[in-house]
Amino acid sequence: MIRAALKKVVVIGGGTGNFVVLKGLKHFPLDLTAIVSMADDGGSTGILRDELGVLPPGDVRQCLIALSNSSRLMRSLMNYRFENGGLGGHSFGNLLLSALEKVTGSFEKAVEEASKILNIQGKVIPVTTHQVRLKMVLNNRRILEGEREIYLSQEIDQGYKTIYLEPFPKVNPRVIDDILNADLLVIGPGGLHTSLIPNLLVEGVCDAICQSDARKVFVVNLMNRKGQTTGFRTSNYVKELVRYLGKDIFDHILFNVQKPTKQLIEVYANEGDLVENDLDDSRLIPAELLGSLAEENKKDLLKRNLIRHDSKKLAQELMKIVDHL
Amino acid sequence: MIRAALKKVVVIGGGTGNFVVLKGLKHFPLDLTAIVSMADDGGSTGILRDELGVLPPGDVRQCLIALSNSSRLMRSLMNYRFENGGLGGHSFGNLLLSALEKVTGSFEKAVEEASKILNIQGKVIPVTTHQVRLKMVLNNRRILEGEREIYLSQEIDQGYKTIYLEPFPKVNPRVIDDILNADLLVIGPGGLHTSLIPNLLVEGVCDAICQSDARKVFVVNLMNRKGQTTGFRTSNYVKELVRYLGKDIFDHILFNVQKPTKQLIEVYANEGDLVENDLDDSRLIPAELLGSLAEENKKDLLKRNLIRHDSKKLAQELMKIVDHL
Repeated sequence: MIRAALKKVVVIGGGTGNFVVLKGLKHFPLDLTAIVSMADDGGSTGILRDELGVLPPGDVRQCLIALSNSSRLMRSLMNYRFENGGLGGHSFGNLLLSALEKVTGSFEKAVEEASKILNIQGKVIPVTTHQVRLKMVLNNRRILEGEREIYLSQEIDQGYKTIYLEPFPKVNPRVIDDILNADLLVIGPGGLHTSLIPNLLVEGVCDAICQSDARKVFVVNLMNRKGQTTGFRTSNYVKELVRYLGKDIFDHILFNVQKPTKQLIEVYANEGDLVENDLDDSRLIPAELLGSLAEENKKDLLKRNLIRHDSKKLAQELMKIVDHL
Repeated sequence: MIRAALKKVVVIGGGTGNFVVLKGLKHFPLDLTAIVSMADDGGSTGILRDELGVLPPGDVRQCLIALSNSSRLMRSLMNYRFENGGLGGHSFGNLLLSALEKVTGSFEKAVEEASKILNIQGKVIPVTTHQVRLKMVLNNRRILEGEREIYLSQEIDQGYKTIYLEPFPKVNPRVIDDILNADLLVIGPGGLHTSLIPNLLVEGVCDAICQSDARKVFVVNLMNRKGQTTGFRTSNYVKELVRYLGKDIFDHILFNVQKPTKQLIEVYANEGDLVENDLDDSRLIPAELLGSLAEENKKDLLKRNLIRHDSKKLAQELMKIVDHL
């Protein structure tokens, strides 16, 4: 009996969106790759970039944890945040990646070593290994400097002229290979301007996506972020991505149709609104994708990400596509 | 064929002294245990104790690295010190132990988990898991607070009234078992007041050492520390330990007879003098135990610990004792 080669799935993004997709897909027999934005400069990651001159570890850390087959303790350790003093706010996993970068002299080597320590399923690849800053010029000519400032801005839905990485980075060559050889490309969910687009701004990434024979899926966000994508519908998301990709390359658009409770929507009203679908398109896959509210979170309704994708449901829908390849 | 049980060797101390002994003994088939002082409060360790309320990780880290069978990279990682900002001065291994203590809720569990991560040969046991401070009352009634202050004092050789741990700690029960079941107990080398005696100040440790049927070896330091043990000879070291042990329990006294170069002794003149032997005793084992000067250190003669034990030579002498048990 000849064992069929594993299907190659490449997930492009950064942050919590990637985490949910990878965590779900990890349980299936796939050749899994996460391509991660290197634009993060907030919180612990920002301090490490500024003080140590390292590449941003935060998004890579999340992907590594999502793909880790090591003990729950190891995963808790990686997410552990020091609470006091000079270490306050740093997550241990970030420190691991930064120390490994210093010891090995290379961020990619650091990710590789951390992948071994965490016994990960698949691989995690930084989209570039150059030090870059994300910048955005708004319609009113104001320049937002850095991913964090863009993430916090409430003016973006007033329109922006351009978004770019400075300096214009060379792509990590492994990224191009992985995209070209993929069977399935998954883009999203994730912050449109802060997690998804920063990958598309790296030299060669959009071309590779367009040239790849992979089936391409866009996973639409559940919520719009206030002041960033307020009132965005599916078509707005697709249009914004196409602005960088050059053409609409999506074969499938995975959209959640499960409504959160009124109570949750009210809690979220200050942060943003639900994404509505406006596409009547054969590519659309409507599905119930909402994560259930964990007991421990019910107490703390102000916590972020209460309305989120369920990693299992999301993976099941993606696997339906993979199974038909 | 019945396979003989491994001989049980217990090394008592803390700091660099322990490191050298363990690093050498690791390569022999032994049941190896390091019992580690919990009095350290200087540098990175002191900051972690103060800011996070954790137990002191520094000496444990050194023992774990000495016993580690993992890659050179992992060992470099554990010793890596962050250079800038809020993290400046912290060694990564210390952060690992402190984060593990926070995540597991127990320092002993943390040491156990770190032992797995570092794939150690043998085991490392904190002498107590209580938060203690080392204090010393000098003859002039001045009180030195903390191991660091004692380490830096140049008045100790003027005599002291008492040294104690505050609060008086309960011993880690595993320590007593290990001492009672040992075949060989190794005490020293190491800072007399800052690494060796702090173990003897923990409830029950001295009694266990005295009751144990193990062969007991004292490894005499190479150098006296100026203002601490200035002019000490072998008999002074033994006498000082016997002050806490209650009786002279040493079966062997391992003493280095290899002279460092004049140049090195001159470099060290400001730090201390060579320990001379004044015992004419059947227990004395004279041996050439000096480490050779690594090429990279020749450039930097001001670096500490240029005159140090060679871990291989030390282990060979200790193994001669073990082989005759």
